[in-house]
Amino acid sequence: MADRASSSSPRPGSAGARSWWGWGTIDQALPDAECASLAALVPGAAQSPLPVPSITSLELSAPRVTAPAALAPLLSADPAERAAHTYGKAFRDVVRALYGEMAAAPDLVGRPRDERDVVQLLDWAAVADVAVVPYGAGSSVVGGVEYRAGDHSGVLSLDLSGLDRVLEIDRVSRAARIQAGVLGPGLEAHLRPYGLTLRHFPQSFAFSTLGGWLATRAGGHYATLHTHIDDLTESLRVVTPSGVSQSLRVPGSGAGPSPDRLFLGSEGTLGIITEAWMRLQDRPSHKASASMVFERFPDAVEAVRAIAQSGLHPANCRLLDPGEAALSGVAAGGGSVLVLGVESAHGPVDGRLAELVDLARNHGGSPVEASADGDSAAGTWRSAFLRMPYLRDGMARMSVISETFETACTWDRFPELYEAVRRDVGAAVRKVTGASGLINCRFTHVYPDGPAPYFTVIAPGRRGAEVAMWDEIKAAAMETLGEQRATVTHHHAVGRDHRPGYDRQRPEPFALALRAAKRALDPAGILNPGVLFDAARP
Amino acid sequence: MADRASSSSPRPGSAGARSWWGWGTIDQALPDAECASLAALVPGAAQSPLPVPSITSLELSAPRVTAPAALAPLLSADPAERAAHTYGKAFRDVVRALYGEMAAAPDLVGRPRDERDVVQLLDWAAVADVAVVPYGAGSSVVGGVEYRAGDHSGVLSLDLSGLDRVLEIDRVSRAARIQAGVLGPGLEAHLRPYGLTLRHFPQSFAFSTLGGWLATRAGGHYATLHTHIDDLTESLRVVTPSGVSQSLRVPGSGAGPSPDRLFLGSEGTLGIITEAWMRLQDRPSHKASASMVFERFPDAVEAVRAIAQSGLHPANCRLLDPGEAALSGVAAGGGSVLVLGVESAHGPVDGRLAELVDLARNHGGSPVEASADGDSAAGTWRSAFLRMPYLRDGMARMSVISETFETACTWDRFPELYEAVRRDVGAAVRKVTGASGLINCRFTHVYPDGPAPYFTVIAPGRRGAEVAMWDEIKAAAMETLGEQRATVTHHHAVGRDHRPGYDRQRPEPFALALRAAKRALDPAGILNPGVLFDAARP
Repeated sequence: MADRASSSSPRPGSAGARSWWGWGTIDQALPDAECASLAALVPGAAQSPLPVPSITSLELSAPRVTAPAALAPLLSADPAERAAHTYGKAFRDVVRALYGEMAAAPDLVGRPRDERDVVQLLDWAAVADVAVVPYGAGSSVVGGVEYRAGDHSGVLSLDLSGLDRVLEIDRVSRAARIQAGVLGPGLEAHLRPYGLTLRHFPQSFAFSTLGGWLATRAGGHYATLHTHIDDLTESLRVVTPSGVSQSLRVPGSGAGPSPDRLFLGSEGTLGIITEAWMRLQDRPSHKASASMVFERFPDAVEAVRAIAQSGLHPANCRLLDPGEAALSGVAAGGGSVLVLGVESAHGPVDGRLAELVDLARNHGGSPVEASADGDSAAGTWRSAFLRMPYLRDGMARMSVISETFETACTWDRFPELYEAVRRDVGAAVRKVTGASGLINCRFTHVYPDGPAPYFTVIAPGRRGAEVAMWDEIKAAAMETLGEQRATVTHHHAVGRDHRPGYDRQRPEPFALALRAAKRALDPAGILNPGVLFDAARP
Repeated sequence: MADRASSSSPRPGSAGARSWWGWGTIDQALPDAECASLAALVPGAAQSPLPVPSITSLELSAPRVTAPAALAPLLSADPAERAAHTYGKAFRDVVRALYGEMAAAPDLVGRPRDERDVVQLLDWAAVADVAVVPYGAGSSVVGGVEYRAGDHSGVLSLDLSGLDRVLEIDRVSRAARIQAGVLGPGLEAHLRPYGLTLRHFPQSFAFSTLGGWLATRAGGHYATLHTHIDDLTESLRVVTPSGVSQSLRVPGSGAGPSPDRLFLGSEGTLGIITEAWMRLQDRPSHKASASMVFERFPDAVEAVRAIAQSGLHPANCRLLDPGEAALSGVAAGGGSVLVLGVESAHGPVDGRLAELVDLARNHGGSPVEASADGDSAAGTWRSAFLRMPYLRDGMARMSVISETFETACTWDRFPELYEAVRRDVGAAVRKVTGASGLINCRFTHVYPDGPAPYFTVIAPGRRGAEVAMWDEIKAAAMETLGEQRATVTHHHAVGRDHRPGYDRQRPEPFALALRAAKRALDPAGILNPGVLFDAARP
């Protein structure tokens, strides 16, 4: 079978139109008054929101390259297109957009309709010395879609959202061949009639693409077992300047180093992922959840460790530290909250939930009282989770620094890491902002050998200095993670922003191998330059 | 903690002394009479066993290189050492050893005592143009430890069995830092007092090392979920000629392509794995098993697919086709047998076993009657499984071709693959041997998206032509797997024997990247030349 995916991106101007400067859709952005009342909770915040510039008012430099006639239908130099493809959606991206800083705008935006278009655009770019920055839906929070290298003749933002089809479904093996540009909701809508799901729900689900997930080793919503997109990948098709790579579609293989694992996480530096065979699952029909509150955070951590090592594989296992629990509105009074969820497509899950609750209870947890519509803490937390990026944008307009960083470490190191982050990043926040701010922590994913802690920082910024202030705090955070031997990123990717920490973390012989692979696959050095490494240029 | 591993290899001459020509230990080899009675079951087999040559009677050419004085304590030119390090343990290896063919013998055998020794040996080898063939315990069945390239000044077999210590145990995170040369039993003996296990039990468990498992992406005994050693790997330490690579020890990371995944499956071509942090598990305390018999093999396949997609994660899920079931002695009368097992370190597993049995029953399975000591088919099969390599050696002495090949494919392709293998490899067997022989199949591992079928071929060979005959059959098998788009190997690795199939299967851009990585890490081209690819030599 090969039929058209049932959904596509909303049209500009419609209720669901995408915001060019901030997260998600325009209609979900906070009105000015809400921005102000939100910021009123942050001592030292600005009094009024930064205005949102009109996209037509931005000053962009003239494109330095022009589209060759044969490729003209695929390329646009429209200022609005270029502006909307300049940044990802990190705090520092949103702030710069609000200030109308558009120096990094690509010269052209390319919209290939199929793989052949991708090949032709790469061929032209290699000859014309044009840097190619792959762009899925632009949700990068690490500078992954923002050109900074500076020495190319021009920059092409390669928007892959036209490759949005589900090409084949193999119901027997539960897998599908899917184009890289499909957004999360479109993909799931297409799989639903078959009773199937990719079951990969990152926070950015509605505004990110399969290709982006694969290129950045995205983490899904589910807390245990198959956390990264890596494990859901059966085979990849990748257009490189040196040829098209198509790996064999098999459930497992021991034939040499995995070809897919080289491209997973390559962040557009080695090739453009155009399609993938992805492993699917039956849609869960049984679900149950519960939330537990702990007086002492270390007890809650031990409970989560016991759960992660129990083999019970909860779908959800989010631990919110006291600050995070209070911020999300799921618990006041200084408690830590553990949100547990279990799912199955095959049978009842109540017994498994009861076992999980018992484990939590054995470590000092008590149930949070559920409301009539089920588990209240889980529901409150989930609403807050999906709303969070819009609140972040509202706070950015109030010049409030509101950003996150995330990592993973082994269990033996977590207590020290947690203390070190709160101490050292806390000191950086005080130094930079003069305020104590908030540094909260939650676990997004947990493994038998350790958690993936996710930190949120909120502190008042000074108007006009927001980006520099955050960059200084983030540098301190990266320094602390490195000292603590925790990874610079568990699922946000490296991009350009994480380079200092990544360069320290990556084993030098592996860096040699990666640069050599880059030279072999991208000899002209045009693919997403500056991401992961500084590649030699011919 | 850092204490000495509690077990070491048996001393030569002891009851457990290793066989130099065949599988495992000398005392387990079949006596002549048993070889003959076994072969009597194969029409057309030889009448008397090939004699086992004395290791001291072998004719080896003089070593072409001599050890430099400083490294002399680490190197041996002893003919017995060289002979024992010449081959792996494939059928073709055993036969050639029986015939005393020793042209491939390494010039020297190196036995580093620590990582510094490894570095020094590599440094010398690069300068002296000596090929280095890493050797764990020599269980390769794909020519992985046999030098064939021919153009180096000499060959060093690098025996890593001296690096056999467990260096650290992190009970909290359930992980251990382990040297690469430790054998399976020694490793498990060291972990047992902590209530921990690596739970990686390949058929070669007693005669293979952690480093070998990692370098070849070994498959363990367990049928679902974590099948390959890859998933149990937290971080690797690898000595390359361009430096030592130490990856960060974290439970998960999204920081660029995984460094470990480049070395996993690199089969000694990119570096020498010297130690690894491995994820451990609590030792299972609850176990249950059951066996089901099916009249029709396709029904059994459907049952296994349902089980693999059920999320129940059985520890054991081996399906034996009618021929394999008969050969293993678990079922006569043409039935297929499914051996199911469940394990847990945390709680009773009877409910899960009952669910699995129900799934099998829904697809036409009936329980095999258990004997007093539990599940008889599982026990019979397990004994046969561990005894199999010794029987293979006994048949090899009777010039009976007795060998295996294995693969993985998606469920939608399995019925056709099964038919194609029986048809096309069957035709090759008849053409080569004049007999119909046996081609049996079992599933060693199963995934939601497909099985890993493992084929056994038994047919009478002609004395003196055994290797050439098998090579022709194996070439047909590789051809069929390629046509069927099944992987050339699920867990036996590529080595030198699988090169034709692997070269076709590997995406060409990935080959470019891999060769480039090779040049960067091993510029002199000394590491296991001929495995995975033909590397350019300076």
